[in-house]
Amino acid sequence: MLGRVLCTVLFVGALPSAAAASQGHISVVLLGATGDLAKKYLWQGLFQLYMDQAPDRCAVLKDQFLKLSQYHQLKTAENYAALSREIESLLRQEGLQEAGRIFYFSVPPFAYTEIAGHINGSCRPRAGAWLRVVLEKPFGHDLRSAQQLAAQLAGFFREEEMYRVDHYLGKQAVAHILPFRDQNRRFLDPIWNRHHVERVEVVLKETVDAKGRTSFYEQYGVIRDVLQNHLTEALMFLVMELPANVSSAQEVVQHKLQAFQSLWGLQRGSAVLGQYQAYDSQVQEELPEARGYVSTTPTFAGVLIHSHSPRWEGVPFLLTSGKALDERVGYARVLFRSRAYCPQSGTLRDAGLSQCKPKQIIFYFGHGALNTPAVLVSRNLFQPAMPKDSWKEAGARSDLHVFGQPLSDFYVYSPVKERDAYSVLISHIYHGRKDFFITTESLLASWAFWTPLLDSTSRQPPRLYPGGVENQQLLDFEMVPGGVAFTLPEPAELLNPSGQLPSDFRAIQSKFRQSPLVSAWAEELIAQLASDMEEAAVRSVARSGQFHLALSGGSSPVGLFQRLARHHYSFPWQHSHVWLVDERCVPLTDGESNFLGLHRHLLQHVRVPYFNIHPMPVHLNRRLCVEEDGGAELYAKDIVALVANASFDLVLLGVGADGHTASLFPRSESGLEGAPTVVLTESPVKPHQRMSLSLPLINRARRVFVLVLGKGKHDITTLLSRVGREPRKWPISGVSPSSGQLVWYVDYEALLG
Amino acid sequence: MLGRVLCTVLFVGALPSAAAASQGHISVVLLGATGDLAKKYLWQGLFQLYMDQAPDRCAVLKDQFLKLSQYHQLKTAENYAALSREIESLLRQEGLQEAGRIFYFSVPPFAYTEIAGHINGSCRPRAGAWLRVVLEKPFGHDLRSAQQLAAQLAGFFREEEMYRVDHYLGKQAVAHILPFRDQNRRFLDPIWNRHHVERVEVVLKETVDAKGRTSFYEQYGVIRDVLQNHLTEALMFLVMELPANVSSAQEVVQHKLQAFQSLWGLQRGSAVLGQYQAYDSQVQEELPEARGYVSTTPTFAGVLIHSHSPRWEGVPFLLTSGKALDERVGYARVLFRSRAYCPQSGTLRDAGLSQCKPKQIIFYFGHGALNTPAVLVSRNLFQPAMPKDSWKEAGARSDLHVFGQPLSDFYVYSPVKERDAYSVLISHIYHGRKDFFITTESLLASWAFWTPLLDSTSRQPPRLYPGGVENQQLLDFEMVPGGVAFTLPEPAELLNPSGQLPSDFRAIQSKFRQSPLVSAWAEELIAQLASDMEEAAVRSVARSGQFHLALSGGSSPVGLFQRLARHHYSFPWQHSHVWLVDERCVPLTDGESNFLGLHRHLLQHVRVPYFNIHPMPVHLNRRLCVEEDGGAELYAKDIVALVANASFDLVLLGVGADGHTASLFPRSESGLEGAPTVVLTESPVKPHQRMSLSLPLINRARRVFVLVLGKGKHDITTLLSRVGREPRKWPISGVSPSSGQLVWYVDYEALLG
Repeated sequence: MLGRVLCTVLFVGALPSAAAASQGHISVVLLGATGDLAKKYLWQGLFQLYMDQAPDRCAVLKDQFLKLSQYHQLKTAENYAALSREIESLLRQEGLQEAGRIFYFSVPPFAYTEIAGHINGSCRPRAGAWLRVVLEKPFGHDLRSAQQLAAQLAGFFREEEMYRVDHYLGKQAVAHILPFRDQNRRFLDPIWNRHHVERVEVVLKETVDAKGRTSFYEQYGVIRDVLQNHLTEALMFLVMELPANVSSAQEVVQHKLQAFQSLWGLQRGSAVLGQYQAYDSQVQEELPEARGYVSTTPTFAGVLIHSHSPRWEGVPFLLTSGKALDERVGYARVLFRSRAYCPQSGTLRDAGLSQCKPKQIIFYFGHGALNTPAVLVSRNLFQPAMPKDSWKEAGARSDLHVFGQPLSDFYVYSPVKERDAYSVLISHIYHGRKDFFITTESLLASWAFWTPLLDSTSRQPPRLYPGGVENQQLLDFEMVPGGVAFTLPEPAELLNPSGQLPSDFRAIQSKFRQSPLVSAWAEELIAQLASDMEEAAVRSVARSGQFHLALSGGSSPVGLFQRLARHHYSFPWQHSHVWLVDERCVPLTDGESNFLGLHRHLLQHVRVPYFNIHPMPVHLNRRLCVEEDGGAELYAKDIVALVANASFDLVLLGVGADGHTASLFPRSESGLEGAPTVVLTESPVKPHQRMSLSLPLINRARRVFVLVLGKGKHDITTLLSRVGREPRKWPISGVSPSSGQLVWYVDYEALLG
Repeated sequence: MLGRVLCTVLFVGALPSAAAASQGHISVVLLGATGDLAKKYLWQGLFQLYMDQAPDRCAVLKDQFLKLSQYHQLKTAENYAALSREIESLLRQEGLQEAGRIFYFSVPPFAYTEIAGHINGSCRPRAGAWLRVVLEKPFGHDLRSAQQLAAQLAGFFREEEMYRVDHYLGKQAVAHILPFRDQNRRFLDPIWNRHHVERVEVVLKETVDAKGRTSFYEQYGVIRDVLQNHLTEALMFLVMELPANVSSAQEVVQHKLQAFQSLWGLQRGSAVLGQYQAYDSQVQEELPEARGYVSTTPTFAGVLIHSHSPRWEGVPFLLTSGKALDERVGYARVLFRSRAYCPQSGTLRDAGLSQCKPKQIIFYFGHGALNTPAVLVSRNLFQPAMPKDSWKEAGARSDLHVFGQPLSDFYVYSPVKERDAYSVLISHIYHGRKDFFITTESLLASWAFWTPLLDSTSRQPPRLYPGGVENQQLLDFEMVPGGVAFTLPEPAELLNPSGQLPSDFRAIQSKFRQSPLVSAWAEELIAQLASDMEEAAVRSVARSGQFHLALSGGSSPVGLFQRLARHHYSFPWQHSHVWLVDERCVPLTDGESNFLGLHRHLLQHVRVPYFNIHPMPVHLNRRLCVEEDGGAELYAKDIVALVANASFDLVLLGVGADGHTASLFPRSESGLEGAPTVVLTESPVKPHQRMSLSLPLINRARRVFVLVLGKGKHDITTLLSRVGREPRKWPISGVSPSSGQLVWYVDYEALLG
């Protein structure tokens, strides 16, 4: 197999770095030199690098280059040790200092660990010289496999020794995004935000399909192949906060990680997926093991991403890629809102630099109508500063239309010298420019971001499309509540005509413990609960002008909080009071605090007035839940003062596997009966001390919704379906609003196991 | 004069209402029946109303109508009493019950009070019959005059007796906005909000100019003539929360008032103003008293309005009207954001119902390309429900383009029967439909909204424009930070070529008490201060990851808080901590609380995390500022715990006329010297008890900005410019950061008197 035959090319002293500091000899070892990637890009890139040293002596250099290239077979540890000795003796012969060694992994990932072990064990340069290993994707298949691979590599190499290639970072238009933002800060600072940007699109359209590559493609699909890496990298350059120094690898990666942190998690609804119609038969042809199996691997994806950063909140980032589309083109496009009103009617609006025309900035990766990398800036925006040595203004081609406008509406710049991405990257490896490569942290951040979508869509049938111009509007998609959806209804030739995948089940309504039961898969269930909560809130506000909501902590409601924050724009937060059902006796800023969780997942994203937020006073006089400080009484008094009749409009509860609810545990000495008040309780698990609404107080509520999620709750759910009211054994069984409504929201996993 | 000759038309029993309940005779008295308005619209409207009763007998009715119309001269109280007697005797003769009397004021406003007095004193119907007085604009000139007029009228009539006409409420397309929203709730509910609406435009363009009417126009200008009333009413219908019952006058007016409450106040920057070039010479010609005077009355205005309601926050409402423009047209247009991505390139996007085409809903008032009232809905939005008896789908006219799209892209509805606005309104008066008229409350709300703009722009020179198509792009305007601005720079033929109006002075920089001084007119000064604060915040966050800001209460900083909330989108609130400089010993929710003011004007509009908001603990153990409760110590401890070195990044102070700052008053026993801490103090004015940062704590800050506004501060400013450091006499004189920077922001009024 390819991975077993390994080759080497050595440059002996031939590539003196421009920087005086890095004088010395550098060896380049290309592992898998006969592979596809090497043939198509790497050799050329290495030669280009060599050429860059003295562009006027091309023929001579080519000769030298070939002489300097040596092939080695590298299999065993001994092979690597021998190579190391050979480099050292060569250096001695020539009287050279060794600056460093570059190992370029152009091999399939399964071979990584072994080779990495050999390099680390037998082929490291001596102290004082550096090691750089260059790795090619795939870097794993999802977060877990990426973490495993990263952990293995970390056993052999230090972070600064690893250069993970995403060749998009070598594409001239992508690589220029940050410098462009930096050099045009003056123009961009006021407009590079949610107030001015309408949307951001990052797109790679291909005309080719996966024929001949389905054995690879069937394992990956378009999201892993293109979106998780290439398009995400381009997006990050657009949306990260601009580092003070855009050439600092450290600053860039920090800002990239922060940008990942600011993205909302993806859900199944975040993507539309398609598959060109011929794909499945290609798979059947090329993969004998796939006989009888219907592939759901997407070859087209449109994904909606949102950020909750103050800069980008609400701005849609649309990532789209597909095979078998109508044209080959790639771009990252920032579309600005129209900020102008032009009183003059008719054609005058379209003349000249009218502010009523569209405004956009496009980083054009290549191909398409322009057939060159380019940077386009609408003339009614600004004339950008561009580095004259590397970008030139393109000639007028007024016949061309791009993005709905004549090309003459843009300032258009193209590279002075078009360079292949690999040539660019090989040069950056050589010069140690780590900012052009993917660090472990940012790789894992990207996988952490994409994996939930991959998981939740893994069984989703993609929409079939014929391919090419025949696709017409079949792949048009639009933003809808909860994500994106294809605009046109599913055509008749649907993969799964019944449409009866589990995810399509409607929420069903029934009874549980004599009360209404809503049940569905977790995501639908949460959507339904969030809607019901909004409806309850709207009704309360209409009736009384306010809505008193008491929320539980823990992990179950996190998805609910996120959904409320993201999808319920008309939730009357301005008139809502948020109370806690229970709290752990830790400072409110402690990671264990229920309030902190609530704040992170909900409160910081919505506009509840400061005065309407009511954390439990577990922390008084600089100590936690001390009886004499009277925190529980204080909270009870606040409730009596603000909530009419101490009757919350809605209390949201969960259930523990032991039947506890709120912080009322089995056999609790307080809170299970008696006065409607607030109590201090003891939890069997840490942190032991808790504050909680009492059961009688909960039972005064107008509505109580109980959310139960996951297989781990199946046993208690089954038990609860059978037992009566025994709050001392199972506190949740004592929830029974005296004049309010109780509704159970139980997902299929909890209900059915 | 017109107002002295008054006429009457009586309908004796001729207009039996359709509703059985209102059986009986109704008299209609048209005051000023020979005036312009009466000639153009009212007679026709009255006849139309008469006709509506039996449309098949036109000729006969016309004859009857004329017979029923009687002219009376009404000057004295006796004239009115005689009229009343005549109505009564006529009713007796015919054996009729009186249902009510309608008095239509078609007279100039100066005549209102006298006539109103006579009607109230001498011409009211007997108990059991109603009185309706119909009033025509202008209803005042600004808030104050409108209040005066309203108060005078309230002395004569009850609110339910007054029918203030805004004839736009009778225009079919305007009157249908609420019913349309009501009947299409299903489609509109999800999209009628900031997440879907790109902008709202309400526009009245006229081709005529003010020639012949300058004596009126010179007093009013375009904002009072068109924007304050007609366009505002249309806007309110679009943006108000939809009443449950859109026919309930009471619900509609309540929702309208709430909508006014949700609008941000207008400032000078909120508008661009123009004046057609011939206007001034027309004024010179028609108004002898204007010789040598240069009119700055605007004949064109573009105004940007924003709401802070959760539904509309961030959506621009653009109101535009002008005379001598290129076409006559009026419309209210809701433009939706593009929510779609269409992967197929090229012309396919424009075909059919593509979601990638613009989406809009237009209430077309009339004239223009369509030349009829109409409701247009983009076909890629939805097919609207329209009442078939009053609106019909218009035939295809694919040659027409409106709003950048072929008419065939829209569902187009026009009235089954086109009706003049006055005919509609007269019928509504007759039937007592008060929802089609302006109540006193909503009139005053509108004036309260518009008056600050009128005041702040009263001396602003408008941009001159040639008129008609010659205007080209001269009146194009765009949204900029702080409002709107013309897109093109001021042309050379500027009214005021020097540009040296006071409002154009740049902020000047100098020294005050050995520290930097920034001075300008209040509005510019606040803009500068807000920018400097943002810069300080950004720097602090870049340096330390957070920004600790201590803010003063009182009235001076309100404008600053509003500016920060409205214009400083990139202020790093997420990383800012907000502290109080001082607080009054009242509950935080008391109207006197500094924190409440801060919350209202700033905190509720920005996203400061809950944990970063630090109100002073003046209210502990249910009592206020009791020494033993240790509130001051608690706050000091919080500061020490969170603020590095107890050194605030920025402290904002004000100055009292007595030289106090924070809540440190002359001869205060605590806080002027000693430890850097928090103290309880006594104010000479109520509420006496205060909590305040001490002077030594303030002086630890990295930056202290002192804001001084208004003529009332001129004396203390002058004094401070002369005296040394005497904090016991003038506490502000003790502000002198030990290693930080002090900057004075003093407006021209405080500085120059």
